[in-house]
Amino acid sequence: VATSDLPVGGFSLANLPFGVVRPRLGEPRVVVRVGDAVLDLAAAGIAPELTSRPTANALFAARSWSEVRRRAQDLLADRGGAAPLLDLADVEVLLPIDVGDFVDFYSSIDHATNLGRILRPGSEPLLANWRRLPVGYHGRASSVVVSGTPIARPEGLITCDDGRVALRPTGALDFELEVGWIVGGPPATRLQPDHADRHVVGAVLLNDWSARDIQSFEYQPLGPNLAKSFATSISPWIVTLDALRPFLVAPPEQDPPPDPYLRARRPWAVDLDLQVELNATTITRTNFAAMYWSFAQQLAHTTVNGATTRAGDLLGSGTVSGPTPGERGSMIELTWRGAEPLTLAGGATRSFLEDGDTVTMRGWCGDASVQRPLISFGEVSGTIMPAPPRRRPESTGRRS
Amino acid sequence: VATSDLPVGGFSLANLPFGVVRPRLGEPRVVVRVGDAVLDLAAAGIAPELTSRPTANALFAARSWSEVRRRAQDLLADRGGAAPLLDLADVEVLLPIDVGDFVDFYSSIDHATNLGRILRPGSEPLLANWRRLPVGYHGRASSVVVSGTPIARPEGLITCDDGRVALRPTGALDFELEVGWIVGGPPATRLQPDHADRHVVGAVLLNDWSARDIQSFEYQPLGPNLAKSFATSISPWIVTLDALRPFLVAPPEQDPPPDPYLRARRPWAVDLDLQVELNATTITRTNFAAMYWSFAQQLAHTTVNGATTRAGDLLGSGTVSGPTPGERGSMIELTWRGAEPLTLAGGATRSFLEDGDTVTMRGWCGDASVQRPLISFGEVSGTIMPAPPRRRPESTGRRS
Repeated sequence: VATSDLPVGGFSLANLPFGVVRPRLGEPRVVVRVGDAVLDLAAAGIAPELTSRPTANALFAARSWSEVRRRAQDLLADRGGAAPLLDLADVEVLLPIDVGDFVDFYSSIDHATNLGRILRPGSEPLLANWRRLPVGYHGRASSVVVSGTPIARPEGLITCDDGRVALRPTGALDFELEVGWIVGGPPATRLQPDHADRHVVGAVLLNDWSARDIQSFEYQPLGPNLAKSFATSISPWIVTLDALRPFLVAPPEQDPPPDPYLRARRPWAVDLDLQVELNATTITRTNFAAMYWSFAQQLAHTTVNGATTRAGDLLGSGTVSGPTPGERGSMIELTWRGAEPLTLAGGATRSFLEDGDTVTMRGWCGDASVQRPLISFGEVSGTIMPAPPRRRPESTGRRS
Repeated sequence: VATSDLPVGGFSLANLPFGVVRPRLGEPRVVVRVGDAVLDLAAAGIAPELTSRPTANALFAARSWSEVRRRAQDLLADRGGAAPLLDLADVEVLLPIDVGDFVDFYSSIDHATNLGRILRPGSEPLLANWRRLPVGYHGRASSVVVSGTPIARPEGLITCDDGRVALRPTGALDFELEVGWIVGGPPATRLQPDHADRHVVGAVLLNDWSARDIQSFEYQPLGPNLAKSFATSISPWIVTLDALRPFLVAPPEQDPPPDPYLRARRPWAVDLDLQVELNATTITRTNFAAMYWSFAQQLAHTTVNGATTRAGDLLGSGTVSGPTPGERGSMIELTWRGAEPLTLAGGATRSFLEDGDTVTMRGWCGDASVQRPLISFGEVSGTIMPAPPRRRPESTGRRS
């Protein structure tokens, strides 16, 4: 497919990501995005039994995503404007999948090292397991929301300044810049990293909102729970591995070499530029290629114990941070837990996120050359709302 | 409803738990169990739009469970054998729900104290957060299986005797005796403990299979992952809160008094007898009433940060252990991490589970008096299979 006379701006036919939209009249349906429009796949006669649905799960489970995307490419290249396109301005963009299990990792060595230095100063920043396996935990699937959803400041038990532990709105609300990988295909287990493209549809941008003070108090010994479970935002367009193929690159050397079940011969790192804006200021610019553990290794790890995949499972990369201060993917790193507040355009400063703040993450591959067509991930954005007022609990004071 | 002339054995009309079965001919459907039969709700004309489905999620989402069960009770009390009953021997008993989010807690003070003593000898067994909030984490929803499903011994990275870290079948396979609570109703958040019965349908027995050696290596700092994610077994019959109402009792005193969002005036502990059999030997007998944190508090905690419920969410109680050695709900406690192996009937000994072992958990309330009719949970059972042979990874030795 030639890209020269097709929509530009990262959503050309070389990209053609999947999403789900609700037209003004009609039911939600699975589409591909092309420029500032979407192709109604069912109306185009492309796998209507799988695409006239409110989520892409059935399409992904049937392992039809590559063929459906190719047919959409052919149709758009051939018929162009005669295809059943809907203007993006005329549709509501929805969460594209019913999220199965959401496993969130911790796979950037710079992020894990920064967190180790901040939280355990004076000791070895990386724990003994970190270089041996992709450390991860299960997040809350029903809290995954689509870009644009407002984020209410969560409450949780926090150690207050006077040492008391009480329910308070978090005072350390943070974002985490991540990439999320969407699983497809029939249930599968004990997967090899080099088979990842049979089981992964593609990727979205992911903001793993985090409340650091809630996390500090709750996380021993079973890991984060309320500090993360209130919301996770994803971008609405699932950029396929088929589109990302020109940007798959060799990952960094791993030392020590991983156990055989985690070894790959094919390149599974992605040359993907990422940036974060806080209100009007770009505060982070980094690249995804330096991640220590790849999504292919994360998938192999998740299933090595016999756990099975489901179409719609989501693998979070973990916070993407690079080695320099301008490449840090979270506020706790950027401000070194508040010790070095950020100064934004206009002079305001931030240690953590304040009510009304908007965090926007963007990602793209390529430089619009023929070999490296621009592939946009679009954005994942969210604005912080105040914590809702508390109802007076009916039981206050009666049992204590 | 009089119970005297109705099926006995814990599945009388006073119980009437929900489940899902597949008849020899026909599609899976939602039923209630009565004696050794099930009532085909759709065939009986009871909410067929909600009960002629392969899971109970829609019925529970519609908050129709109490009414549907009452109608089934009336029909069975009135028509008895003329109702559309299927013999249990003629149906396949399936997983009753599509599990939404699975949050597993750690709410027995005796279990948490035992684990603290075993894993951190010499220090305070309970961490600072334990008495302030119900510690919990998200488990893998797609690994929840119904009683009877064989459990393959999982592999994972383990520190071997020679100090090397390598992929091995677990040598420390364990069970955890738990009770699982099933959520119903429309999505809801910031719930008060005393409203729990609006949002919880009922309970099942739950075996949270665990691989202690995998857990030791992986769990810092984000909690257990592969050590738990390979399988969680539940009993197939959802015993309703309506049936459990005569057995709700006051929970133990909590010290310190919990934060107001966790306070309850109504009694949410359950006088529920539990036992565990390993092969032919009963190795644990305990009761659920002593749990420090109730499911009502767990539900309030899970949603206090704005996270919403979904019908089909599962809350695991955490391992149920009592204060005496015969009341311990896991092998790691019963054998004090292998230091005091169990002797089974016939003389065999066990530190952890071996291939071919069968673990069966049973639970019941009441003593078959009129005030306290016998309410059976049935059983959750699973037999350990050897770890599957490993394929030789395609990539062995190529990148290291």
